[in-house]
Amino acid sequence: MPDRTFESRLLAVLRDIAGHPAARGLKDDAAVLPWPLGLDLVATHDMLVEGVHFLADCPPADIGWKLVAVNVSDLAGMGARPVAMLLGAGFGPERDAGWAGDLVRGVGRAAEKFGIALIGGDTVRTREETVLSLTALGSVPDDGALGREGARAGDDLWVSGAIGDSGLGLRSLGGGQPSEPEATAALVRRYRLPQPRVELGLALRGIASACMDVSDGLLIDAQRLAQASNLMAELRLGAMPVSASAHALLGEGLSMEERITLATFGDDYELLFTAPRGKRDAVRVAAAAARTPVTRIGTLTEQADGSQDALRLVDAELPSRLGFLHD
Amino acid sequence: MPDRTFESRLLAVLRDIAGHPAARGLKDDAAVLPWPLGLDLVATHDMLVEGVHFLADCPPADIGWKLVAVNVSDLAGMGARPVAMLLGAGFGPERDAGWAGDLVRGVGRAAEKFGIALIGGDTVRTREETVLSLTALGSVPDDGALGREGARAGDDLWVSGAIGDSGLGLRSLGGGQPSEPEATAALVRRYRLPQPRVELGLALRGIASACMDVSDGLLIDAQRLAQASNLMAELRLGAMPVSASAHALLGEGLSMEERITLATFGDDYELLFTAPRGKRDAVRVAAAAARTPVTRIGTLTEQADGSQDALRLVDAELPSRLGFLHD
Repeated sequence: MPDRTFESRLLAVLRDIAGHPAARGLKDDAAVLPWPLGLDLVATHDMLVEGVHFLADCPPADIGWKLVAVNVSDLAGMGARPVAMLLGAGFGPERDAGWAGDLVRGVGRAAEKFGIALIGGDTVRTREETVLSLTALGSVPDDGALGREGARAGDDLWVSGAIGDSGLGLRSLGGGQPSEPEATAALVRRYRLPQPRVELGLALRGIASACMDVSDGLLIDAQRLAQASNLMAELRLGAMPVSASAHALLGEGLSMEERITLATFGDDYELLFTAPRGKRDAVRVAAAAARTPVTRIGTLTEQADGSQDALRLVDAELPSRLGFLHD
Repeated sequence: MPDRTFESRLLAVLRDIAGHPAARGLKDDAAVLPWPLGLDLVATHDMLVEGVHFLADCPPADIGWKLVAVNVSDLAGMGARPVAMLLGAGFGPERDAGWAGDLVRGVGRAAEKFGIALIGGDTVRTREETVLSLTALGSVPDDGALGREGARAGDDLWVSGAIGDSGLGLRSLGGGQPSEPEATAALVRRYRLPQPRVELGLALRGIASACMDVSDGLLIDAQRLAQASNLMAELRLGAMPVSASAHALLGEGLSMEERITLATFGDDYELLFTAPRGKRDAVRVAAAAARTPVTRIGTLTEQADGSQDALRLVDAELPSRLGFLHD
């Protein structure tokens, strides 16, 4: 039976958040968005499944934030400016209008933070778990999009921010009273409320030769980035940036095993990119303008003859598992 | 555990279908689509849930077709030209790569039929039921979109094609050996493989004063269309178009009860629209150009003072249930 209270309460929250004229008050069959002259449209669509991509007991507002953030991070990886989004939400039978409304409010907070307007979508009930989908639309100047292809042998490999925080945050969630409550809380925030590197992506247009966001783990994503240009990434694990919060939990001197763990967690939503050696200053200026730290962690080289190896660690053995493999 | 065979087999099918350059071989974080000058972007996003919006034993290729068709029908309701789409597919644990591949092939067949390119998306596994989402992008000339608002008192109410076929098709699916096998098969096809009225939507730009697609049932959607302009739809149920296949099943002379059943089934994906009386010839010319039959079924009038009644049947009592209410 249709639950009219659920539907009408949720629609009220959605209409409040989808205030952009393109949303047409959520009254029409589709949204209509004027598109500025001379811009390409960048479009991405990611799904989050309860029990797979988020925990059932995660605060709903944080799930909503993360749904927006992971899609905006894909736009950032392309050097695109976030413009508009459409939300698909299938709520399981155990979710009430209060829970759904909180999730949508989290979507709204992320939308405001990242400058992306909710312009439409669909809400339905599922019979079992909650399944969320989001389409994010962004813009780039004609032919200005970054992408995974385009790196050249000799290019530097760079990464933004710090790697592994989110995975440490997730791991600490089941762990009882933490010994470092402040650092642990910061890591959990990094897991639940990722901050995609939109400004950095915009600043890297015309500078980076290849770019992507780190979602499945630094190692597997470095392998993918190198593979896209038929090159090999030679990555120095000791150079990988690690946050003060991670050091507070793990100590100052990290073993290579600990670094590999951080580099294979995933959910970082940092930018991984390549740039010619001659553009090191340009990268640093772009990063400063975007107020985002960046670190040089390796080099792209030719693959050995006949080999398709796309990743080598210069200071450790390559582990057999390179990251989080969704399926 | 990730099922690598599932993933790689499905990706091969997806890459085959997502051949448009904007898809970038499904290798990047997002699709990049050049947008023609002077066009507005029209965007819609609908979800289909197993057991709610489609039957678990429906052929997967038909589910894929329908997922595209219901979204393209929303574009048609706005008078938009289909351009590109992003597919989100969460496959339940019981679905194998063959089933998923067939579904994606159905998406591809609909994409070819309606001239809309698959440019990206996301595939994941769910823990229970299969949940599908699709974002369809279309274009209209600046300020050329149709919408639900805009009807005026005195406008005619029109509908395309025939109403109720899809619901009859669904009802016949559980019914054993049909007495009219050919007509029944045609009705089941109308349920499983809806044909959105894209050409008619394009042809009605500048002619229709308000427009939407009929997805939840003629009566409830007529009420919504009238409500959007604060008017009342006076609908003649006896004028409602009924197909030859429906007559083959139900006989030539339909009772008002039978007509109400047809008018509340939903899943028709016809266009319901209003136009000034002076544009009757223009509507007929547009319909002929789109090779789509249209029928005048009523009139829009002022709502009675103080009333918010937006629907009246001139030749029958209004039933308490006006259509299929999703939730």
